Amino acid sequence: MNYKMIGKFISQLLFVEVIFMLPALLIAAYDGDMGVTKAFLTTMMLIIVVAGLLYLWCRKAQKAFYAREGLVCVGLSWIVMSLLGCLPFYLSKEIPSYIDALFEIVSGFTTTGASILPAVEGISRGNLYWRSFSHWLGGMGVLVFLLALSSKNDKGKGFTMHILRAESPGPDVGKLVPKMRTTAMILYLLYLILTVLDFLFLIAGHMPVFDAVCTAFGTAGTGGFGIKNDSIAGYSPYIQNVCTVFMLLFGVNFSCYYLMILGQFKKVFLDEELRMYVVMVAGSIALITWNLKGFYGTLSETVRHAAFQVATVVTTTGFATTDFDLWPGFSKTILLILMIFGACAGSTGGGFKCGRALLLMKNLKRNMRRILNPQKVEVVRNNGQMVSEQVLRNIDTYLSAYCAIMIVSVLLVSIDGFSITTNISSVIACFNNIGPGFDAVGPTCNYAGFGVFSKIVLIIDMLAGRLEIFPMLVLFSYSTWRRK
Amino acid sequence: MNYKMIGKFISQLLFVEVIFMLPALLIAAYDGDMGVTKAFLTTMMLIIVVAGLLYLWCRKAQKAFYAREGLVCVGLSWIVMSLLGCLPFYLSKEIPSYIDALFEIVSGFTTTGASILPAVEGISRGNLYWRSFSHWLGGMGVLVFLLALSSKNDKGKGFTMHILRAESPGPDVGKLVPKMRTTAMILYLLYLILTVLDFLFLIAGHMPVFDAVCTAFGTAGTGGFGIKNDSIAGYSPYIQNVCTVFMLLFGVNFSCYYLMILGQFKKVFLDEELRMYVVMVAGSIALITWNLKGFYGTLSETVRHAAFQVATVVTTTGFATTDFDLWPGFSKTILLILMIFGACAGSTGGGFKCGRALLLMKNLKRNMRRILNPQKVEVVRNNGQMVSEQVLRNIDTYLSAYCAIMIVSVLLVSIDGFSITTNISSVIACFNNIGPGFDAVGPTCNYAGFGVFSKIVLIIDMLAGRLEIFPMLVLFSYSTWRRK
Repeated sequence: MNYKMIGKFISQLLFVEVIFMLPALLIAAYDGDMGVTKAFLTTMMLIIVVAGLLYLWCRKAQKAFYAREGLVCVGLSWIVMSLLGCLPFYLSKEIPSYIDALFEIVSGFTTTGASILPAVEGISRGNLYWRSFSHWLGGMGVLVFLLALSSKNDKGKGFTMHILRAESPGPDVGKLVPKMRTTAMILYLLYLILTVLDFLFLIAGHMPVFDAVCTAFGTAGTGGFGIKNDSIAGYSPYIQNVCTVFMLLFGVNFSCYYLMILGQFKKVFLDEELRMYVVMVAGSIALITWNLKGFYGTLSETVRHAAFQVATVVTTTGFATTDFDLWPGFSKTILLILMIFGACAGSTGGGFKCGRALLLMKNLKRNMRRILNPQKVEVVRNNGQMVSEQVLRNIDTYLSAYCAIMIVSVLLVSIDGFSITTNISSVIACFNNIGPGFDAVGPTCNYAGFGVFSKIVLIIDMLAGRLEIFPMLVLFSYSTWRRK
Repeated sequence: MNYKMIGKFISQLLFVEVIFMLPALLIAAYDGDMGVTKAFLTTMMLIIVVAGLLYLWCRKAQKAFYAREGLVCVGLSWIVMSLLGCLPFYLSKEIPSYIDALFEIVSGFTTTGASILPAVEGISRGNLYWRSFSHWLGGMGVLVFLLALSSKNDKGKGFTMHILRAESPGPDVGKLVPKMRTTAMILYLLYLILTVLDFLFLIAGHMPVFDAVCTAFGTAGTGGFGIKNDSIAGYSPYIQNVCTVFMLLFGVNFSCYYLMILGQFKKVFLDEELRMYVVMVAGSIALITWNLKGFYGTLSETVRHAAFQVATVVTTTGFATTDFDLWPGFSKTILLILMIFGACAGSTGGGFKCGRALLLMKNLKRNMRRILNPQKVEVVRNNGQMVSEQVLRNIDTYLSAYCAIMIVSVLLVSIDGFSITTNISSVIACFNNIGPGFDAVGPTCNYAGFGVFSKIVLIIDMLAGRLEIFPMLVLFSYSTWRRK
């Protein structure tokens, strides 16, 4: 294990974190919030000391770097970043328990949006900003950001690739261009442009600037932290619709946008994952609208709520305009299933990912035919291209790990004695980075009621979900830490 | 598709069904139950006519028989057997709706034990006997029974193997002896001996003979239809404990018993699946007993109820001695998870099967290591023997199909508007052939409230669960019926 290389990378990451804390510090200072300002200052100084010491120790790292190190590096980075990043909440006493503060920031970085706060309106603007910004940072991956910035020859061979592979969502890393670093830059540029667009549309609807910034961060990262107790419900229908559209846009594979910029619209139009995503979203909205007949005053209101809730759940954002826990069983079941599927691979959304589900089904069909005709050799194709057996095997492995983690987590969380719906939906909501679930963790409730042990389980689930399992599995496996 | 061969086989199967209906007819006649006697007589005559015509048409069948035909044959056999086997319930008007009668008999043959009857004590003994006997017939597989009886050279090459493979539970068909037919005979002999033992132990506890027969059938097939409204709750603790022990025994891979008869105790002791099963059962009983502290009067009562409910759920039987829906969330979650795992492969129990879960986890570990070291070639071993890649691939395929069927079924069943817990647990309970679920389908409730459409979905789930998915998938796939 190349500890020094990992340490060096984490130290650089912590410096980036400090820089990104600056706006929150300025907002707190501007608001004259002494406690919060002090909390941010203390945190930032502490991080600088930790990062500095780490850098001095790890300066001279060897360049050898393998897949295992990439996974460990990504897993550890996210954990360290969260352990320190939650300090402003804790030191400002706005979240008095450290484990709650950690839950909140992990929920932020992993773009889950599950909160332990019963009411957010009492929280200072500095902390609210940091909370929402954590979504933006986690959405596209903060390590990807660092890679996009870092100089070309700084890292060992394979470093960039291993990190990108471990942090980027989706079954297969889409190289937009041959150079990984340039890919990272393009991704972040697209991400920034879409976020700014979202912000401008919100401003056009007369949303206050601070609200628009935080909402745009939450939408872009498909996170879901709101700054109002009723999430987005209090804003105008126009703003709600803007959120719906942008949530859905951020759930699309970013390579589609890159292709559109290159003018390859036909390729985008024929993309099988995008088609599945569109059909799933449109179908769900239609079915829920039909099922909600008479639930709201007008058809347009019903469609608006149905579309918003479908968008928030399928992209695993977690905003809300209505309490969907009160909806009839059929609509709730559709939402539960959408939670599991999630958005497209290569988007900021979480969940199992449409692309992965699509390949799983294609592989299932192929393997069924193989059982009937063992002689016949057949390949699985995606968008006309052959999918390698390794990718298919990894998806099967992913499904096994996904099921195993779900079962173990539900069992552990259930010790707190909540209902089965609460246990299952809290794990689904955290593991798939959605936020709200049903019953005791429904859209109008929060996660404060769980015990410390369950919160730790859910924190690990959120990280495992966002990092797509493998980094966390490697981090927690005995063989990684065994001396050879 | 070799339709004639399939038709001929089904006609023979129907003759067997008529013969097995005889005891029920005699019981009804003995009780002087004219309506029920007539219903059985009519059904039997109808079946004889259908089977006779089918036999005449299919007499001269070609012998060519492939895997696809084996799967279709098994799937169709079970459906035809159920469509006709439910007639006594319907014609006697004891279950006035045909779809309900079909639900009940499919639940019987698939050893699910889910009932649409609000109270069974009003049902005649003839029908009760037939209902319980259907468990016994379905438990080891009625086609396996037919194969054990049929003469050696009657069938084409591969016929016996394809049928056994398609009907027997488990990831890999355990050939006890080189000849498939002898294997089938040994299995049925063991099954018969264990059933008789169970019956004798029940009689020793002063259980009435009719009750003991029906309870032994329900236990042996791990079915769960009781003949009392409160299932097993009204019987003495001794009888409850006998049921617990025998349910657990019928959940063990039958090849273990064969090995024990051969004196190979060490092999049985080292069997990895058996170890997992024992640890899972013992651990669950211990955890639930701890969780139920203060729920029942004494520790021994708590252990008895915990052990019974764990046994009934893990072996997917479905008897009950207490309403576990009232237990705390942790205990309920343990039961829910046990429902999914199920018993050992090669037993009469349902579910995903311990052996399959074990191989899945081993394969997961292996594949994780493969991701980290792509060069390293490693095989998966079970009980020291190498597991072929084909078996591992089939298990992955099974998991995908399992998840897909679960998701689709939950969605379809949810149209009836019940709670999420009801929807999920009814599908889990039917698909894994357990019987009772939670909430509206809890141990004291029944499936009568579902609509016709949901009942059909659950009927297909029960069949898919018992036949381990592939026969039903082949039956419902377009390519099977396409003319080439």
